[in-house]
Amino acid sequence: MEKQKLVVIGAVAAGTKAASKAKRNNPDLDIKVFTKERYISYAGCGLPYYIGGVIKEKQEILVRSPEDFRNNQGIDVFTEHEVKKINVSEKKVIVEDLKSGNVQEFPYDKLIIATGASPIVPPLENIGLANIFTLRSVSDALTIRELLDSGKVKKAVVVGGGFIGLETAENLKYRGIEVTIVELMPHILPPFDEEIALYAQNHMVDMGVNILTGEKVTGFEGIDGKVSAVKTSAGDIEADMVILSIGVRPNTAVAVEAGIETGAAGAIKVNKYMETNIKDIYAAGDCAENTNLVTGKPVWYPMGSTSNKTGRIAGHNAALVKQDESMKDSLEGVLGTTIVRLFEINAAKTGLSERDAIREGYDIETVLVPGNDKAHYFPGNKRIITKLIVDRSTRKVLGAQIVGEGAADKPIDTIAAAITLGAKVSDLAKLDLAYAPPFSMAMSTTILSANVMMNKLTGRIETVKSGDVYKGLEDGSINILDVREEGEFFISAIPGSTNIPLNEIEARAGEIDKSKETIILVCKLGERAYSSYLKLKKLGFKNLRVLEGGTCAYPYELI
Amino acid sequence: MEKQKLVVIGAVAAGTKAASKAKRNNPDLDIKVFTKERYISYAGCGLPYYIGGVIKEKQEILVRSPEDFRNNQGIDVFTEHEVKKINVSEKKVIVEDLKSGNVQEFPYDKLIIATGASPIVPPLENIGLANIFTLRSVSDALTIRELLDSGKVKKAVVVGGGFIGLETAENLKYRGIEVTIVELMPHILPPFDEEIALYAQNHMVDMGVNILTGEKVTGFEGIDGKVSAVKTSAGDIEADMVILSIGVRPNTAVAVEAGIETGAAGAIKVNKYMETNIKDIYAAGDCAENTNLVTGKPVWYPMGSTSNKTGRIAGHNAALVKQDESMKDSLEGVLGTTIVRLFEINAAKTGLSERDAIREGYDIETVLVPGNDKAHYFPGNKRIITKLIVDRSTRKVLGAQIVGEGAADKPIDTIAAAITLGAKVSDLAKLDLAYAPPFSMAMSTTILSANVMMNKLTGRIETVKSGDVYKGLEDGSINILDVREEGEFFISAIPGSTNIPLNEIEARAGEIDKSKETIILVCKLGERAYSSYLKLKKLGFKNLRVLEGGTCAYPYELI
Repeated sequence: MEKQKLVVIGAVAAGTKAASKAKRNNPDLDIKVFTKERYISYAGCGLPYYIGGVIKEKQEILVRSPEDFRNNQGIDVFTEHEVKKINVSEKKVIVEDLKSGNVQEFPYDKLIIATGASPIVPPLENIGLANIFTLRSVSDALTIRELLDSGKVKKAVVVGGGFIGLETAENLKYRGIEVTIVELMPHILPPFDEEIALYAQNHMVDMGVNILTGEKVTGFEGIDGKVSAVKTSAGDIEADMVILSIGVRPNTAVAVEAGIETGAAGAIKVNKYMETNIKDIYAAGDCAENTNLVTGKPVWYPMGSTSNKTGRIAGHNAALVKQDESMKDSLEGVLGTTIVRLFEINAAKTGLSERDAIREGYDIETVLVPGNDKAHYFPGNKRIITKLIVDRSTRKVLGAQIVGEGAADKPIDTIAAAITLGAKVSDLAKLDLAYAPPFSMAMSTTILSANVMMNKLTGRIETVKSGDVYKGLEDGSINILDVREEGEFFISAIPGSTNIPLNEIEARAGEIDKSKETIILVCKLGERAYSSYLKLKKLGFKNLRVLEGGTCAYPYELI
Repeated sequence: MEKQKLVVIGAVAAGTKAASKAKRNNPDLDIKVFTKERYISYAGCGLPYYIGGVIKEKQEILVRSPEDFRNNQGIDVFTEHEVKKINVSEKKVIVEDLKSGNVQEFPYDKLIIATGASPIVPPLENIGLANIFTLRSVSDALTIRELLDSGKVKKAVVVGGGFIGLETAENLKYRGIEVTIVELMPHILPPFDEEIALYAQNHMVDMGVNILTGEKVTGFEGIDGKVSAVKTSAGDIEADMVILSIGVRPNTAVAVEAGIETGAAGAIKVNKYMETNIKDIYAAGDCAENTNLVTGKPVWYPMGSTSNKTGRIAGHNAALVKQDESMKDSLEGVLGTTIVRLFEINAAKTGLSERDAIREGYDIETVLVPGNDKAHYFPGNKRIITKLIVDRSTRKVLGAQIVGEGAADKPIDTIAAAITLGAKVSDLAKLDLAYAPPFSMAMSTTILSANVMMNKLTGRIETVKSGDVYKGLEDGSINILDVREEGEFFISAIPGSTNIPLNEIEARAGEIDKSKETIILVCKLGERAYSSYLKLKKLGFKNLRVLEGGTCAYPYELI
């Protein structure tokens, strides 16, 4: 019997994972992998660190070579070979060898499309100037690092304040380059909610990165064919180098031409088995759609973690000798869990943001709770701020965001696991998490946040968001009462606030100005403000609100 | 109307948490807290680090003072006041002021017992000698640190290789003291399975701690009333100081006398609301039983994290004006999640161990999988080894253990959350966890372990445990084939193994000795052994087994 033929298009994360998994499960398969790129199986997420020199050698980000696949697994990988066309009716692919120009046909029994995504390069004025780059492939990274190593780059502009843009900015800054980020949205980290994103943004600015938000890049200027400035709505910014990190688009041209369906974001529609609408054709990785586990709706989250999972599933299913449903591997969906390190802070997100949740029509409650990543008395403990987003009616956790100097990866993973398994906020509050002083507070930040949420949902505390305090300052509707110690208050405080320390609050309650619509109670973390809330409430005060996250999470100007 | 009276016995974690929560929920309560100790609200888990000087000042481990409770919350805390008797019929407690000897009665409407646990001090020969300590209270820690600061301690013996004993041993070692641990069980960390515990034990030995396992302390010898040696079944060990860390017992005398029921371990029986068998009496913290979430059975896990939770619940419920079921807070159970840092490694555990699971009658499958806590190419990445224990019939995750230099707290928390919410191993494999190179591999260790487990459950791989290889070496039933590169093999290998590198395995298959019952395939991490397994299987080899965890997790002698 002739060997079953599996063709895979693409050889970064999903493609190589799919081929390897298929071969392990079914060693009799004849597997051919085609990629138009020169490099395969590379760590795309490591590229910003390679240009910054954190990762020293090119070899470190090249996970496996075509020879590895050939010798250790018996998988043929054809680099610099572009699949020009999928002939669905005859089940074959038409492939061009990009070096020789030769075109050849290869038949398949099963086909896995893992063509990934490509950076968006908008048709701006002078976009063709030298030293304007995207950072997606190994070749991009090699070129950029070579230019940086030449010492000719003094000023760089990063267009786009998403993850890759920010990681690139950080790495350029480490190399002593003056960096400006230009972001179209009102803050960097667009998928995050404002108070979390601004916290990260303030830190980037503190670390010396220039950040322009709400600004549009309109074009570039050049000298001798090389970029010299970026033109924005706010004026020109000098630049010897530009990194475009505006976003990516799924590579689906060859799939679409073959009649494979795509979704709203242009990515290939797949079911939970990674099957496309055409029999025996699978899609995986950044070119394929995902399902959001919270909403159940199709989304497109091009991420390395998901690519590895969907590649593995496509490989597993394509390798099945018998297409028995019970033998298939599947992925119900993802949460879009992400994390980024920015200088000395971490920012992480899972599930829906507050904005997403409102747009999806949920009636939500949110909290913002500071805490420590280790016991407060253990050396090296650092702060993180946890935001929880909960559905008020079902009390299910919809999403979370974490930012701060402390470990954000641990709690975001815990919460992601909990959301995936349908946790209510009361479940989160009761998790039996690992505690010892070097690792956590006795009540971890996740439990603490869930407890605050329970208090809020049951009406034990009424809170206000920093953004609303900021607005209230402008329209004069609020009286801000800071209950920290006098010394703390005088170091820095919210503009317009007055100070009565917590332990004097009952005695000095008569001094409190009740003329404003709302009295905002403020301390550093929220705990003392909550105590003062309880005391004043007992004294008959109305319209009290505790500032969520306290001054430590207040991302607007303090005086 | 007279104020409702809440009496709390005990003022460390559960007692103070209960009192605070009750007061916040119901500010009208009259709350009195009695403790026979001098110090309250202290960080018991921080004490080993205080004696080691990692935590410098006593004040750092004292979380809150009686004055804090009085002034900020209106809660009266009576230190050095021992509750001698609970008069259930008249609803009052009889309290002795330990300084004055005065005895007084205090009525209660609700009573919370949070009397904690005390170290076991066995009646060994000469146990009364000076410089034999337990380490449980602040007073213990102050005395020990004073002795250490005097410079008179050169050699110390720690009796018991549980968490407190090991943390104490580490901290003593940091102070330049020669430390010997004597453990009755065959390995330290008795709740852990052997291969994980031995990994930790090997590390402690590498760090210069003497460890005697399977040895019993029979008594002590002294000079001038001070301990000079520990007598064990293996001989005498010189010691200027001895720390007894044999375990703790719940403090329940006063409760038992009042007719409050206790369970198998002697801890107070409570339902999920922390209610005891006597109306209006609650118990929380280390003196109370817990329910194991996996088995549903009563257990006793005296831990700070659980004490905080149960204290909070007892406080919440005791403060309810109306005992409406729907308003009550509750805890369904715990997993006994624990973690310890030992010099440069971490060891963590959640749910059932393999031993527990077998004893409980589960038909289980286990895996042991090494991985990195960051991307393999990211500087500072470190290894962890994950053990998963899964119920073969339901495929539910029953437990996990993690050991290694890398971050163990993150994955154990993720798995603990998953187990709590009823995860199957396939759920674990599909979790959308946060990935970026500084935080994780693209497929995290948890997902990797779950994938290996899936492969094992579906018969794609057959493995063998290190302990069974060790036994097989003795009875000569196995042929160990090491498929690493020649250079790796010659540095260190399992005794009696032979070497054929993976990429030569097909060509040199004829050399493999098939006379033994089983062929064990070995590499560093398990991946290459798995590849060789697939290749040899294809060549018709039978009775192949991959060594779980590879040489990196093999805790027995290598040559």
